[in-house]
Amino acid sequence: MGFKTIDEANEAVVQRMISTQPTLMDVVPAKSVIPELNDENTKTLLHAGPPIRFDQMSDPMQGSCVGAILFEKWADNEEDARKMLENDEIRFVPFHHVNGVGPMGGITSANFPVLVVKDTSNETENNTAYCTLNEGIGAVLRFGAFGPQVIERLEWQRDVLGPVLSKALRKIEGGMNVNGAIARAIAMGDEFHQRNIAASYAFLRDLAPIITALEDVDQKDKEVVIQFLADTDQFFLNIAMAAGKVMTDTARNEIQSGTIVTAMCRNGHEFGIRIAGMGDEWFTGPVNTPQGLYFTGFSEEDANPDMGDSAITETIGVGGMAMIAAPAVTRFVGTGGFNDALETSNDMAEITIAENPNWIIPTWNFKGAPTGIDARLVVETGILPVINTGIANKVAGRGQIGAGTVNPPMEAFEKAITAYAKKLGME
Amino acid sequence: MGFKTIDEANEAVVQRMISTQPTLMDVVPAKSVIPELNDENTKTLLHAGPPIRFDQMSDPMQGSCVGAILFEKWADNEEDARKMLENDEIRFVPFHHVNGVGPMGGITSANFPVLVVKDTSNETENNTAYCTLNEGIGAVLRFGAFGPQVIERLEWQRDVLGPVLSKALRKIEGGMNVNGAIARAIAMGDEFHQRNIAASYAFLRDLAPIITALEDVDQKDKEVVIQFLADTDQFFLNIAMAAGKVMTDTARNEIQSGTIVTAMCRNGHEFGIRIAGMGDEWFTGPVNTPQGLYFTGFSEEDANPDMGDSAITETIGVGGMAMIAAPAVTRFVGTGGFNDALETSNDMAEITIAENPNWIIPTWNFKGAPTGIDARLVVETGILPVINTGIANKVAGRGQIGAGTVNPPMEAFEKAITAYAKKLGME
Repeated sequence: MGFKTIDEANEAVVQRMISTQPTLMDVVPAKSVIPELNDENTKTLLHAGPPIRFDQMSDPMQGSCVGAILFEKWADNEEDARKMLENDEIRFVPFHHVNGVGPMGGITSANFPVLVVKDTSNETENNTAYCTLNEGIGAVLRFGAFGPQVIERLEWQRDVLGPVLSKALRKIEGGMNVNGAIARAIAMGDEFHQRNIAASYAFLRDLAPIITALEDVDQKDKEVVIQFLADTDQFFLNIAMAAGKVMTDTARNEIQSGTIVTAMCRNGHEFGIRIAGMGDEWFTGPVNTPQGLYFTGFSEEDANPDMGDSAITETIGVGGMAMIAAPAVTRFVGTGGFNDALETSNDMAEITIAENPNWIIPTWNFKGAPTGIDARLVVETGILPVINTGIANKVAGRGQIGAGTVNPPMEAFEKAITAYAKKLGME
Repeated sequence: MGFKTIDEANEAVVQRMISTQPTLMDVVPAKSVIPELNDENTKTLLHAGPPIRFDQMSDPMQGSCVGAILFEKWADNEEDARKMLENDEIRFVPFHHVNGVGPMGGITSANFPVLVVKDTSNETENNTAYCTLNEGIGAVLRFGAFGPQVIERLEWQRDVLGPVLSKALRKIEGGMNVNGAIARAIAMGDEFHQRNIAASYAFLRDLAPIITALEDVDQKDKEVVIQFLADTDQFFLNIAMAAGKVMTDTARNEIQSGTIVTAMCRNGHEFGIRIAGMGDEWFTGPVNTPQGLYFTGFSEEDANPDMGDSAITETIGVGGMAMIAAPAVTRFVGTGGFNDALETSNDMAEITIAENPNWIIPTWNFKGAPTGIDARLVVETGILPVINTGIANKVAGRGQIGAGTVNPPMEAFEKAITAYAKKLGME
């Protein structure tokens, strides 16, 4: 692979992640950019995490599938939708396999609008990643809800929000620089997994003047779009996720060498990771259930096992890795105070090999985000990445019941290292 | 005054500052709420800081006076405006004397639009404070510029920005809660003197949907207003200043006892403070020139001595007092890194007697903003309040040339304590 040592390969992978220029270009229908969703003969749903069968999915993820089928009008009631799913009439593809990522269940079908984030430092064809739009909170598809209001919101996102954002983003010459947006908001207490409020405000700040001035958009639609963006404090999460996907895939596509983690994701059943040296292969272990703080009336008994592709944020050095950037989040995820946040990020520095100079954390005395998890260091130190996450009700459609942290299973890292050692003939 | 000890009085003053509910209600013409500006027989200009004569004013403040005269059309050229000023045809009143505050020169005349911040915990008549609108950066009146573009911007603020903000704010039932806005943005790295970016974004986030939906405003005006708010990262400073004025004046009006500082301000010539026990009296000393970082091409030689009422932010426990809330600002004002910010706020805790539980600082391990400067403690410890500030070019109209920190003169605190001791018969 042209590298003398694993360290050298790892350094190259991390530097490539850091040198990408994720740029938000557009919002388009998923089927227009993901051929697997545009197959007339096969009804396809994308899902979060490593590969999984329908019968292995947790209740919220199954609920999301029902919702997507109703949204696509492949069935007009829950019963028929479930029959299609149980009879294997639906093909499932991990979102990660088609250049994208999805939050929580990650269930995505042809007509979902998706964010288009392009690595503008990379002129190859493999330079673009996708993510669905944030739906807001409450009863939302990503937590397994599929009632009429959920479907209506998705239809509105398809017919209004997606097209309006597309028109606005296309007015920004060269697209919106996501590295800059992250740098700006990291100094404003975001860690980009549980807390995206500053970046979401800044996104609205950048887009509101453009949307207000759009000439071919109905006045009422402008009002509703601006109100939705103002109300959706986590809107930027999905942008950060698409950016993370393009950063890691750029490195992974260019360099198939070394032990740097290039994906972490969960499907409610298994936690999967990839490392650069093993290309597309998933290394998995059983998923954990997040530990944290529950909203009033809920407890760990109500919690769904961890799910979603959102751990791509930790893969690029933010989220729980950058806990110190967002001390305000520690009280929300139940991990103590400022010093606990500091300890978390200091721990994460033990298992990463670089600081991202683009993403300086003032609260970490201006160190950069701890980037490039070396799977070897995870196994050697026993320190697992810390993932900040929402906690879903294990019953479909009941939504978020808390927030906390979760660790990947050590098994996934051990398997990855073992496989890579074998590949190098070191066994 | 009903207090057994100075400590008891001081505690009461600080608790009253903390228990105020500053609420942004409206934007109105200054003359409509400040009778001194609505006097047909006397042309009046408000200014920042303690009382000052025109001939004592620094060049930028004199430039601002020329600008205000041109804006009011009392003269139609600089020469005639200066003659009016030199011939004492203009009455000068400290903004602080008419329930308001102004940034930098603070020069304000009848037709400036002003923010109206009301203490909704206080049903007396003395419950409202005013501040002009932020003009953005570059050539602006508050730094002494008075060219055509400066006057045109003020006219636009008078004719468009003010009225549009007024219509939007009146749609918010009960007004906009400034305590909540500060609490939200303090967790996003603002300290509300040099750094108001999060609060300004949040202000836009709150107002953009309302402005977009206003029915009786021209579409083009909506676009320009939203663009101006999006471009003006310090817009919230002036809101924080009016809130600070109403907090301190509520306490000062209700309790004339004790040694808590109720105002700090500068006019480019003198630095003035008030303490609760001495009511309206100013205690002054010569003003210092800020120390800090200069924009390329400028140095301390170009700097104007410190000016502006914006140190009202430090008076209420934010700005330089809350440096730890905004570690990102330390690199901007040239005071080092995270640990220096921590040290500054720890020092400020030595001269303040309370933490504001409304304004929790996550980066200070969730301590509240250090509030209530006790002038006795300043004199005893020798620790002076740290004020974050912009540095003005000493030549009128050349604008901001850097940012830094400045201390008040110890003399002002010594004079205040001495006067209060005398009042208590302790001499």
